[in-house]
Amino acid sequence: MKILLIGANGTIGKQVGAHFSRQHKVVKAGRTTAEIKVDIADSSSIKKMFTQLGTVDAIVCCAGEAKWAPLSELNQDDYYIGIKSKLMGQVNLVRIGQHYLNLPGSITLTTGILADQPVPQTASAAMVNGALHSFVLAASAELPAGIRLNVVSPGLVADSAEKYKDYFPGQQPVLMERVVRGFARSVEGRENGEIIRIYNDTK
Amino acid sequence: MKILLIGANGTIGKQVGAHFSRQHKVVKAGRTTAEIKVDIADSSSIKKMFTQLGTVDAIVCCAGEAKWAPLSELNQDDYYIGIKSKLMGQVNLVRIGQHYLNLPGSITLTTGILADQPVPQTASAAMVNGALHSFVLAASAELPAGIRLNVVSPGLVADSAEKYKDYFPGQQPVLMERVVRGFARSVEGRENGEIIRIYNDTK
Repeated sequence: MKILLIGANGTIGKQVGAHFSRQHKVVKAGRTTAEIKVDIADSSSIKKMFTQLGTVDAIVCCAGEAKWAPLSELNQDDYYIGIKSKLMGQVNLVRIGQHYLNLPGSITLTTGILADQPVPQTASAAMVNGALHSFVLAASAELPAGIRLNVVSPGLVADSAEKYKDYFPGQQPVLMERVVRGFARSVEGRENGEIIRIYNDTK
Repeated sequence: MKILLIGANGTIGKQVGAHFSRQHKVVKAGRTTAEIKVDIADSSSIKKMFTQLGTVDAIVCCAGEAKWAPLSELNQDDYYIGIKSKLMGQVNLVRIGQHYLNLPGSITLTTGILADQPVPQTASAAMVNGALHSFVLAASAELPAGIRLNVVSPGLVADSAEKYKDYFPGQQPVLMERVVRGFARSVEGRENGEIIRIYNDTK
């Protein structure tokens, strides 16, 4: 398979790329250092990427940001950082990317446990993740036949546990290999419209 | 209690207003015919409303729109209709309205079953509803003590079943009185951070 991986240099993207590279051709895209430059917050940048790249067999997105801050400090513009990047960036990837998929093909997005189990300072990040979960449920049922759409929602991954542990008191980090397997299920499996939750604890 | 009801002339808002009017003073707000004019898609309109009104004991929002259309026809601007109105309109109500609440006070938002069980043409509407569910989980844990935040997520209500039935094949409409009771739970009860789902069928 030819797999387009966006956010290839992120904590998760790096490991997802390493995994798929063993058996597939992975085209790495990202904002700064990747072979293909793309900023998903800008839909014209997404279009340019696909024009440059042509068709692929799978699109995997591990990119997108949202502002973390106490609820009392989040202003309207702060919410729009996540809306434009992680939310509409990934929605636009589906909107535009579906036309550059060889069939059968798949699109895999990334969210996170905050959608279901938010912690302080994540009102905006949780909102964006929850939006994507419902979007995937809805959009996956309307995409043309042969296109699958899933989202992987990782818990706090072990690789960033040290950095984020104060935000997630008591949370047991999930092993990166479990997260990577979530992406493998979506790309190499047959699931469609799934929110692939990789959590240790579920409510 | 003095209850601010936004969207007082909608299908649900009318019945919610009728219910609370029996025991409370309800101030009705809306875009066109209500005593207080407000467009929640415009945050300055929200600020103006509260400056005009002063403090209240509860804020209830039954307003907000999102575009319904086949996935293949939804362009970026279409998604932003729901983002600006139903999503950020209600987020901004929380951001701004919390400062105009007598304590203890409550804020109650409205979403809908599409967040969990979308139907065709609702990728944008589902997205917005799911965003609000996760936002309420996150924000309710960070609001100042004495402020509760919940969201009522109604299924297809009997009052609009005739209009929407073709979108929801096989869906048994929920009685409006059950939906109204969801709002009563939030406003008159002690719940906080709840997604009050009023569905007949759960997945």
